Amino acid sequence: MFKLEKVLAQIKPLKEEAMAQTQARLDDLTKPKGSLGVMEQIAKKIAGITGQALPTITKKTCILMAGDHGILEEGFNVYPQEVTAQMVYNFLSGGAAMNVFSRHVGAELLIVDVGVAADFKDHPLLLSRKVAYGTQNMSKGPAMTVAQTLKAIETGFEVARGCLSKGSDLLGIGEMGIGNTAASTALLAVFSGVPVESITGRGTGASDALLKQKIKAIEKALKINSPVAAKPLEALAKVGGLEIAGLVGVILAGATFRVPVVLDGFISGAAALVATALQPYVRGYLLSSHLSDEPGHKKMLEMIGIKPILFMNMRLGEGTGAALAMNIIEASVKILHEMATFSGAGVDGPLEK
Amino acid sequence: MFKLEKVLAQIKPLKEEAMAQTQARLDDLTKPKGSLGVMEQIAKKIAGITGQALPTITKKTCILMAGDHGILEEGFNVYPQEVTAQMVYNFLSGGAAMNVFSRHVGAELLIVDVGVAADFKDHPLLLSRKVAYGTQNMSKGPAMTVAQTLKAIETGFEVARGCLSKGSDLLGIGEMGIGNTAASTALLAVFSGVPVESITGRGTGASDALLKQKIKAIEKALKINSPVAAKPLEALAKVGGLEIAGLVGVILAGATFRVPVVLDGFISGAAALVATALQPYVRGYLLSSHLSDEPGHKKMLEMIGIKPILFMNMRLGEGTGAALAMNIIEASVKILHEMATFSGAGVDGPLEK
Repeated sequence: MFKLEKVLAQIKPLKEEAMAQTQARLDDLTKPKGSLGVMEQIAKKIAGITGQALPTITKKTCILMAGDHGILEEGFNVYPQEVTAQMVYNFLSGGAAMNVFSRHVGAELLIVDVGVAADFKDHPLLLSRKVAYGTQNMSKGPAMTVAQTLKAIETGFEVARGCLSKGSDLLGIGEMGIGNTAASTALLAVFSGVPVESITGRGTGASDALLKQKIKAIEKALKINSPVAAKPLEALAKVGGLEIAGLVGVILAGATFRVPVVLDGFISGAAALVATALQPYVRGYLLSSHLSDEPGHKKMLEMIGIKPILFMNMRLGEGTGAALAMNIIEASVKILHEMATFSGAGVDGPLEK
Repeated sequence: MFKLEKVLAQIKPLKEEAMAQTQARLDDLTKPKGSLGVMEQIAKKIAGITGQALPTITKKTCILMAGDHGILEEGFNVYPQEVTAQMVYNFLSGGAAMNVFSRHVGAELLIVDVGVAADFKDHPLLLSRKVAYGTQNMSKGPAMTVAQTLKAIETGFEVARGCLSKGSDLLGIGEMGIGNTAASTALLAVFSGVPVESITGRGTGASDALLKQKIKAIEKALKINSPVAAKPLEALAKVGGLEIAGLVGVILAGATFRVPVVLDGFISGAAALVATALQPYVRGYLLSSHLSDEPGHKKMLEMIGIKPILFMNMRLGEGTGAALAMNIIEASVKILHEMATFSGAGVDGPLEK
């Protein structure tokens, strides 16, 4: 059986020795020391994660968790709840942005129903792991029970474990859930202590009036549930979401089995906030992708302690930023294998000046 | 014969009609309007460049121009001039960072000797187009004659024209030339009017003392040659470089034959500054890649009017940033072809609120 405490206790720091070996290799390649900047840091981090000084990436997998949000009752969203299920069908037929980007970078894409408020017909590409038909309205009480939350975390953990057992060595995470920027904003407010007003965005495109309604709904949820940063699991249950909990499970699996996890935007960042609050070593296993247009995302990444590499004002979610970044992450590992060394290529090093 | 004035006169603005059609298509795809941010802007720009509302990218080519710099005599550089030629051999044998990244993104890589101060053995992958054995020391007089400069521009133009005639529909540019951050800094100073001190970087890794020497050498070059922004060709001759002039030619070919050109870092940016000064319509044909660690690069991109998408503190040149960005640019075009529309996928649009 899945025991969260046991999983958290198994997660260990990065392997320093592999990182030192990778650094030595990087410094011997035909380029000025450090001149590939963050590309070198990514390669080194993956060495620390995998414990291999010359890591390889051979199979990339993106896990997309879908779930619905009871807080939509508050009426601040421009898209109806039905769009979550409709988009799941769109993912299954390959027509969403995330399908395009996953195919483009050569990543497998898994679609997981962990909490959509609709029944789906069986589909060979859909992983049906429904924990509930959406969350409860968190502005009236807890979004989920702790038991549901643990079940959703376990779901993500087991789906990821399944991928890893089939050879995936780079995981990307994404989500679909109309209303989930509200839950993510609530979680950021809990862990950062920053006022809701300053970190609430327009999600998929709210007007000024709807934005005010959204802020009010999130503030109500925080007031009625009183989540605290010191109890991350309870905070996730009170103001989180099923798909966010699922992504927490995916992240914990990456950290447990020493495989890097690429974050996407604001919602995957909320999952990372919870996961790093549960176990700070998790930070070491996270790779960033883009900086989203959501106003709270910058603060979130600062708290997690990672810097975005892509700045494209995207705000779509689904894992789109993670998929694009995967191609770059893959290139960072290839330099270790494919670049010549100064001595091997007969290139002079720097002069002593 | 190559006539610069004639080439400049042939370059036209972007096609507005194709861009409007692409925008309409983007707004009908299954995502909130504008939620793919810069990805959508890139797709639209390529539509304007090619005149096709549904453009495709089928063959990517990176052109790397190599040349040497007489100003190295001033002794501020940590790598000796010989490294330019040694790195050309490294490119030819496939062991440089740019080889790794080009292969990774599936781009052809052309190596052009437009001005290296060494003779090369014949090599099937080397395009020998030497205009001179490096530039003259610009801190003592003009780096090149205007005739040499025009010849180097023509070289770049003809190499690019050759690629385009073989089907390349996305060009990336890169360079190799020990000392070429000095020439690029001088050009930025000419076109921006900003003091040399505030935009001079450490290039491949200069110490404080060498940085001071570098600033002094660039200031001397500007004083003795008196280049002015109003005469871009002459400025390029006085304080530029053969590989920079070659890249100006590549950019002009892209703009002439309506194919997007992906910039790399500081040196390719200097070429873009000159090209846009020669013909402002050129701006429309340029796509950005990364923000380099060179302190003047941000200013340069602001002047050209494009925003970088990758922030990775790279400072290697060669075209490495351009190659990485090509994969993302390619994905931006694919969304137009591969994403479902709202009506086609049965996904509800936004509510009227």
